[in-house]
Amino acid sequence: MTTLLLHLSDVDEAGWTERYREALPEVRVVRRDDDYDPARVDYVFVWKPTPEAFDGLSGLKAVLSLGAGVDALLKHPRLPQAPIVRFVDADLTEKMSDYVVAQVTMHQRLFTRFCRDQRARRWTQIYPPAASNTKVGIMGLGALGADAARRLLGLGFGVVGWSRTAKAIEGVTNFAGEAEFDAFLAATDILVCLLPLTPDTTGILNYEMFGKLRRKLDGGPVIVNAARGGHQREADIIKALDDGTLGAASLDVFEVEPLPAASPLWGLDNCYVTPHIAAISNIETGVRYFSAIIRAHEAGKPLPNVIDRARGY
Amino acid sequence: MTTLLLHLSDVDEAGWTERYREALPEVRVVRRDDDYDPARVDYVFVWKPTPEAFDGLSGLKAVLSLGAGVDALLKHPRLPQAPIVRFVDADLTEKMSDYVVAQVTMHQRLFTRFCRDQRARRWTQIYPPAASNTKVGIMGLGALGADAARRLLGLGFGVVGWSRTAKAIEGVTNFAGEAEFDAFLAATDILVCLLPLTPDTTGILNYEMFGKLRRKLDGGPVIVNAARGGHQREADIIKALDDGTLGAASLDVFEVEPLPAASPLWGLDNCYVTPHIAAISNIETGVRYFSAIIRAHEAGKPLPNVIDRARGY
Repeated sequence: MTTLLLHLSDVDEAGWTERYREALPEVRVVRRDDDYDPARVDYVFVWKPTPEAFDGLSGLKAVLSLGAGVDALLKHPRLPQAPIVRFVDADLTEKMSDYVVAQVTMHQRLFTRFCRDQRARRWTQIYPPAASNTKVGIMGLGALGADAARRLLGLGFGVVGWSRTAKAIEGVTNFAGEAEFDAFLAATDILVCLLPLTPDTTGILNYEMFGKLRRKLDGGPVIVNAARGGHQREADIIKALDDGTLGAASLDVFEVEPLPAASPLWGLDNCYVTPHIAAISNIETGVRYFSAIIRAHEAGKPLPNVIDRARGY
Repeated sequence: MTTLLLHLSDVDEAGWTERYREALPEVRVVRRDDDYDPARVDYVFVWKPTPEAFDGLSGLKAVLSLGAGVDALLKHPRLPQAPIVRFVDADLTEKMSDYVVAQVTMHQRLFTRFCRDQRARRWTQIYPPAASNTKVGIMGLGALGADAARRLLGLGFGVVGWSRTAKAIEGVTNFAGEAEFDAFLAATDILVCLLPLTPDTTGILNYEMFGKLRRKLDGGPVIVNAARGGHQREADIIKALDDGTLGAASLDVFEVEPLPAASPLWGLDNCYVTPHIAAISNIETGVRYFSAIIRAHEAGKPLPNVIDRARGY
């Protein structure tokens, strides 16, 4: 009998287990404290696995990752050689785009400026630019970046994109690789980071790059990070928000989470902090997605969305 | 020779005059202090006309209104009988939809809640509903309402609409007239007012109606008013924002403008005040629009977008 082991931290492992049992009656679904033979586990479904999570799993056919981002998983010291399948979640994509659209439109409409005027009870009429006169630069053009681009195009925004290798998305001006990074930044009023976190992209949101963004939007360029805290240098963001290199920032992720109460980011009136809630993996779509993958693989089909370990995502 | 008189207050009349002269070389374009015979004025282009603005204009073919809303104009004590043509401005429509989308998405993403948590340096993960689980109710389904609906549908929102008479907009559940008003409110999480201001719609945003909105969104229902200050009862909004009948409000218009510094609205952390800047009539598109209308009318064509005085818009 095919065996699926769940190993989840900080999420409702019991709830996922129950749903998997309903969805896959032909599979034995176990949790780490259940009685099972590790050597006979075929699939392990993980989120924030402990160091010993994979010990003894000598017969693994695949590691299934609850998260869309596998940066933390790839740093696991005893990660097995089995293929890693990541979660490509339409529900998570929708919510991520909801977050991106809300932040981008808020900044395009000069929200920080009007909030400051409101606090001062000051009636000063300035007119925000049209969406069609505003350029959003999206870093990372996978499922998340492509969907955000599509939605922003529908609202009339100009959209430019940047990714490691060239991608073609209709209506998006694409830049690729290090060689075209500065040109991408020079065309961007509002920057959205949806990159995977890899050694190449760690700390990519730093003071030097902020200085290369286009300075056309009233108040200065804006960054939105909904990817990983590891992408950003928070000391640089604080400096840039203070000296005007950046006009504003929306951050859903942080170098350390929860964001420590002492972080100056909490207190900046041009920094919009949310507690890593832009999008969450959905239990229903997750069980449907991975159950279908397990069933198809047991029937001899190849695994989809397998991580390239050299690339890092 | 056809004569066009400009009579604009609080906007750049000289700038408009210059543009009209360029666009209509065959027309005599005059301002109120120029030397001209009032009886020979064919068209008058107005914004906030003074009481004597129309005196002596006995040969008028049309009154051209710079504003899309003609509520103030219709109250003019000496308004002539000539047809009134209002400005239907694609540029203004685009900017109005930009404003509406920014406010709606901000509230759907529980912005007020996260701002309060940020001020308290509190990391509390709650997950906003998907756009597809949020219903936006649009009051007024003219050019502005229809465009806002189209954009919100594109983002996945459920959209319901309410108007005086039934309108059919694809994808929008329509309610019409007083009889269906409560059903419309009961289906609405975020209310957007884009109505014309008429005696029937004056004060329509009041405490009693706020209590009929659906209470599904975390924090309570939300109103967005980008139409006219006359639509809202500000004392009711203040009470409703305080007692939780409303979760939040975005207001671009006010009973008295500029909003007096003493208004409590400035100080509410769940009220988002902007100084009537959602959308402004654009000089370029305006000159193009009205020049084409004058030219076509002089060639015998009927006037478009004429106000129905009985209806009030």
